[in-house]
Amino acid sequence: MKAERRDQRSAVLLDSLRKLLRRGANVHLLNLLQRIHPGDIPPIFNVLTETESHEVLKLLIEKDLTRAADIASALHPQTASEILSRFEIPDISRLLQLCSSDDAAEIVASMTDELREHVLSQMRREEGEEVQDLLSYPEETAGRIMSPNFFALSEETSAGDAIKALRSKPDVEMVFYLYVVDSREHLLGVVSLRQLILIDPGTPIRGIMIPNVVSVRTDADQEEVARIVSKYDFLAVPVVDDQNCLVGIITVDDVIDVIRDEATEDFYKLAGTSEDERVQRSVLGAAKLRLPWLTVSLVEGILVVSIFATYQKWDVITKVILMVGFLPMLAGMGGNIGTQSATIVVRGLATGRFALKEIGTVLFREMRIAGILGIGYGVLLSGASYFLPELPPTAAAVIGASIFLIMILAAAIGSFLPMICARISVDPTIATGPFLTSLMDIVGMVVYFELIRLLMPKGI
Amino acid sequence: MKAERRDQRSAVLLDSLRKLLRRGANVHLLNLLQRIHPGDIPPIFNVLTETESHEVLKLLIEKDLTRAADIASALHPQTASEILSRFEIPDISRLLQLCSSDDAAEIVASMTDELREHVLSQMRREEGEEVQDLLSYPEETAGRIMSPNFFALSEETSAGDAIKALRSKPDVEMVFYLYVVDSREHLLGVVSLRQLILIDPGTPIRGIMIPNVVSVRTDADQEEVARIVSKYDFLAVPVVDDQNCLVGIITVDDVIDVIRDEATEDFYKLAGTSEDERVQRSVLGAAKLRLPWLTVSLVEGILVVSIFATYQKWDVITKVILMVGFLPMLAGMGGNIGTQSATIVVRGLATGRFALKEIGTVLFREMRIAGILGIGYGVLLSGASYFLPELPPTAAAVIGASIFLIMILAAAIGSFLPMICARISVDPTIATGPFLTSLMDIVGMVVYFELIRLLMPKGI
Repeated sequence: MKAERRDQRSAVLLDSLRKLLRRGANVHLLNLLQRIHPGDIPPIFNVLTETESHEVLKLLIEKDLTRAADIASALHPQTASEILSRFEIPDISRLLQLCSSDDAAEIVASMTDELREHVLSQMRREEGEEVQDLLSYPEETAGRIMSPNFFALSEETSAGDAIKALRSKPDVEMVFYLYVVDSREHLLGVVSLRQLILIDPGTPIRGIMIPNVVSVRTDADQEEVARIVSKYDFLAVPVVDDQNCLVGIITVDDVIDVIRDEATEDFYKLAGTSEDERVQRSVLGAAKLRLPWLTVSLVEGILVVSIFATYQKWDVITKVILMVGFLPMLAGMGGNIGTQSATIVVRGLATGRFALKEIGTVLFREMRIAGILGIGYGVLLSGASYFLPELPPTAAAVIGASIFLIMILAAAIGSFLPMICARISVDPTIATGPFLTSLMDIVGMVVYFELIRLLMPKGI
Repeated sequence: MKAERRDQRSAVLLDSLRKLLRRGANVHLLNLLQRIHPGDIPPIFNVLTETESHEVLKLLIEKDLTRAADIASALHPQTASEILSRFEIPDISRLLQLCSSDDAAEIVASMTDELREHVLSQMRREEGEEVQDLLSYPEETAGRIMSPNFFALSEETSAGDAIKALRSKPDVEMVFYLYVVDSREHLLGVVSLRQLILIDPGTPIRGIMIPNVVSVRTDADQEEVARIVSKYDFLAVPVVDDQNCLVGIITVDDVIDVIRDEATEDFYKLAGTSEDERVQRSVLGAAKLRLPWLTVSLVEGILVVSIFATYQKWDVITKVILMVGFLPMLAGMGGNIGTQSATIVVRGLATGRFALKEIGTVLFREMRIAGILGIGYGVLLSGASYFLPELPPTAAAVIGASIFLIMILAAAIGSFLPMICARISVDPTIATGPFLTSLMDIVGMVVYFELIRLLMPKGI
């Protein structure tokens, strides 16, 4: 099927699903739900109301628990956990037993502590323990997102036996790579399924395995995992503990989710809100998430008003009030070039394009770019303002010089702040977005008013 | 090897490489270059000077062309093309012949038209034509990024023959999925390598293939391709022409590059600069890329000064000059909440979280969030300004009402603009970033001054 036709189909699916729900045509509804690809489910559930989602899942839990588990795994974990929380604990536990343990761990992690404990205690021993093990690793680490259901072989196994072993394990993940371990589970190497079928069945896999396989530690940050998988074009990466024992694998589809989530998280942070808005259903809740950065604007506003009042008291701005009209532009240009520098740095650090120790080079480069632009715009604007009859000639000089200074300062602050954040292990994205813009408003204002004081001591 | 050790190794590699380059120790240098994983190459080349990169590649082209091709493929295509452009045409052609044709196409696409033609004409017939075919598709489409070296079988083939066929083609990409076609190359289905080894060698693959395989058309946008691969957790997706004939495949590692590149592109656009900055080496060039959005600030500034001058002429602002001091905060808050709404919409459209037809729901939701925040901040600020002795009591009402109005307007504009852009097929990211902030500065100013005119007709 073509992509476009699929998208149309998604809308058609939603319509039929709602119609069947309204009519209570459970047999047809079940039939429809069993035919949908789990990948098509999330967009549909994003549109359904809470009651509708509940009804759909209720039907599946009663009639086809495996399908219910597939669908819960396909949803955003927080969405899944919200919908599931409205069911009876034994139902939740039975459903999660059928999810892969990394999906189940993500879902229960979003539940209240109390509910999570109850749900885990009612799961089958083995599955419950696997989930609990994953939850023992910190969020956003390799240990937390790995799947403990991998396929590992001893180095003595022959290629033929390896294939036989594979046949007996239909539910392990990602069998295109087979990991080789010694008797104490230490990771020794990797064999691809392709190599396996190319050689004589009698050959021990020790002979064809690639040693020195790249692995990640359980405590590696998920962004680091994503960086490695994309850098080396892997389909999966093995996860080892501090003894180099193989404890799980992370497959490329999970890595894609990490990359998307991290990018979304960064976009939201840039805009001064939180990733939780994706799944936050209430308007009041969303408003609360946006409060912190708007409060930054508020504090900025109070600072600006006080600085403004001070300069007014000093008679700096009363005489040529039109000059105040240049303030938004000066602040805006500073904010923009500052954001540009910060974006280069933040994105450069995120994609591994440059390292922290290159701070000097980047800073100098950004300041030169800003310098060139500052001279250009400075000359342009002071030229233009020279011909404004309301302004004295010195005003042109003040405006030009302000633009130049503000832009260089903005580039310096914009590239330096995220680096400082990264150095002290604070997310550098924090230093972009609303905070930087607010800071540049204030810096721009003070530079401008100070230059007026300096170069136009008598007002006009 | 652990991730951390790998990063350290990267720094060590760079140091050794430079040392060997300076000493002209070519034998050791070659040996080092042959041992580095191509995935480790890009960060090193990002730091090397142009001359150093040239020397490294020159040595490899002379001594180990295959390795040179691997390294060129691993680099960002624009970087590779810049470095290669300094070599003789026959050398470039010989090297590109050894790259996979999708990589070669990406590299020559960044060259000047003249150089590209010469390079292509000197490549071996088959490879040159493959690259030319890929280049005939528009940029950022499935046809442009696909690999034409896939593995397809007739539906009559038996599982055993399929495995034999696989053994004879060591250089095709992604053999974990085998596509099944009819005699006229129409895509019929897909078989996974895992299924293939599980069944009796005599079974025809028709019996085990999954029919109705999801495919993309050559003209599908690369973002759409990425969305499909990540939605269905594919390792590769087949590309078909308008006759449903299989013409190529796109593997998950290329999809990861697309996701990363598109995210970076969006971040850069948000900041009002272009993705080309990633590979732009000159400061002047980078400055030029940032001009357009700074010019938006400039135009905004000119508008603001004229609007300011008009209201000054009408005596709206001269009497209570301190009220002008509230302007940056009002504009800032509008800009921030507008950016938040726009980000929700842009990211929602990009990740497929909601569809264009939900515009009404999203708009209403954003306006309600802004309304709640507007009432909160409006009451807070008008309360605070009530106690400022310099301001008349009506000023408090004006400030409170402005905050409320500006925030609702900002949310409406911020969520509506990207939707309009998406509807008319303009990148919605354009409507976020500097343009929105500038627009909100002006809207905020006019709302504020109009409310002053309306509620404070006599000034103080």
